[in-house]
Amino acid sequence: MPGSDSAADITPWTVRDGLASFGEPATLLLHALDEVFTEWGTRAGAVRMTFPPLLAADDLRTLDYFRNFPHLGSTVSRIRTDRLDTHSRGTTGGPVPARDLADAGHLLPSAACYGCFVHFSGTTTDTPLRVSTVARCFRHEDHYDGLRRLWGFTMHETICIGSARQVGEHLEQHHERLAGFAADLGLSLSREPATDPFFEKEGSRTLMQLLAPVKDEYVHTDGTAVASMNNHRNFFGERRSLAYEGKAAFTGCVAFGLERWVHVLNERFEGDLRAATVAVRKAGEEA
Amino acid sequence: MPGSDSAADITPWTVRDGLASFGEPATLLLHALDEVFTEWGTRAGAVRMTFPPLLAADDLRTLDYFRNFPHLGSTVSRIRTDRLDTHSRGTTGGPVPARDLADAGHLLPSAACYGCFVHFSGTTTDTPLRVSTVARCFRHEDHYDGLRRLWGFTMHETICIGSARQVGEHLEQHHERLAGFAADLGLSLSREPATDPFFEKEGSRTLMQLLAPVKDEYVHTDGTAVASMNNHRNFFGERRSLAYEGKAAFTGCVAFGLERWVHVLNERFEGDLRAATVAVRKAGEEA
Repeated sequence: MPGSDSAADITPWTVRDGLASFGEPATLLLHALDEVFTEWGTRAGAVRMTFPPLLAADDLRTLDYFRNFPHLGSTVSRIRTDRLDTHSRGTTGGPVPARDLADAGHLLPSAACYGCFVHFSGTTTDTPLRVSTVARCFRHEDHYDGLRRLWGFTMHETICIGSARQVGEHLEQHHERLAGFAADLGLSLSREPATDPFFEKEGSRTLMQLLAPVKDEYVHTDGTAVASMNNHRNFFGERRSLAYEGKAAFTGCVAFGLERWVHVLNERFEGDLRAATVAVRKAGEEA
Repeated sequence: MPGSDSAADITPWTVRDGLASFGEPATLLLHALDEVFTEWGTRAGAVRMTFPPLLAADDLRTLDYFRNFPHLGSTVSRIRTDRLDTHSRGTTGGPVPARDLADAGHLLPSAACYGCFVHFSGTTTDTPLRVSTVARCFRHEDHYDGLRRLWGFTMHETICIGSARQVGEHLEQHHERLAGFAADLGLSLSREPATDPFFEKEGSRTLMQLLAPVKDEYVHTDGTAVASMNNHRNFFGERRSLAYEGKAAFTGCVAFGLERWVHVLNERFEGDLRAATVAVRKAGEEA
């Protein structure tokens, strides 16, 4: 393979400040994983879509984002016009000071599906809508840990918008595929109730607890959650006026954290990411 | 194709605040373009890599980023710890006010190659290094215009790190591929000196003007620049201690703005993005 013995190939990945650089084998493995999960979505009737790389603060507010996890958010702003000269003179160092920033109208997504629900706001459908999407997501955490816990990461999601039954079936269908895929790869994943921040907060503010148990994670033996099944019930349907057959739609998604898959597959294949990529393609076809 | 007549398919794309949502045909076209440009890179010996989705302000400062275009930068920050409660009570609206933001240690990339040069800082090579990468990039502009001028967009870059001659050959090789590809697609692209902000600023602060003419753009008949050839000479080599054969390396890159290609191909194929995707795959193989 051209360039396979170049400098770019020596380090499989590096992480600094919770942000990863991937060499070629890790890049190819991440792509292969994305293609497998995309193909599962296509077989389930999902359309592939791409949503905006930033979300408006006002839109996130309608989803209780700030109420539930304001601490995770990565706000996006710019240098105030009246402070540009200070910076262009090049006399400052370190971070851009808060006093030089403009208000932040947008945030980086913390999950791939928010953009989908915002996009389809105010629409009505009489057939279930399934969407496959991948997005760079960001969560500020107390600490970062290799590829297991990143500030910026890649999330593939396959979303269903429809009735409660259809959402349940969508999740169960993916559960079966995922179980077979993991088994083929020799990964031991256990299905566990989520420890996501969405669900950790105490009391009545946490909307999901009011409704039903709604999130399971797929956890590798080392504790890494590589995928989750999320049943939002009719929360997004209500908040974003998303109707199915005349009532607030139910929604759910299967989410895959691609860098975490690279982490667990690197363990499983003892650092041979090219072998992992071959195995992922093969297991994906069979799942 | 499953779901091809669903709601997700009706609108090819929507843009709000300079941020785009893509339906399936536009998503598939964007992927096809990325695959063609990746394949050209692979044939030229490039390794595929992925660089961090955010760049440290301190790293950008070493590249004269703030000196040249502080106004374009999208700073990334978070809500100050002592202001989280205000937001979680949900009583505010609109943007997150600047007074509630922490300092911004990072920015979103405005070009895909910065992450590459930061990544390879302090390294030495005796063989030219070619890297193919794709990144979500962001530039604050005075105004946005459909897919022609977005705040957030997708840039594919094929980068060469080596000698002046190797960089020149890398760019010329891509020039020939690009000319053939455009001709096959029936696109009329003219090669023009850049009007990029990197080059617009007057006077001695603009580093590139000190060195040589270095950037050409490929401009469609409607004025949309869909690709550029960038010869950075030894600027990044000097600034990031990137050595080739014992001296500051020369670098150059070919950059493709993928949403702009979707825009011009949508014009060319009169809104038939599926036909455009087929044509892109065919022309890519022949280029």
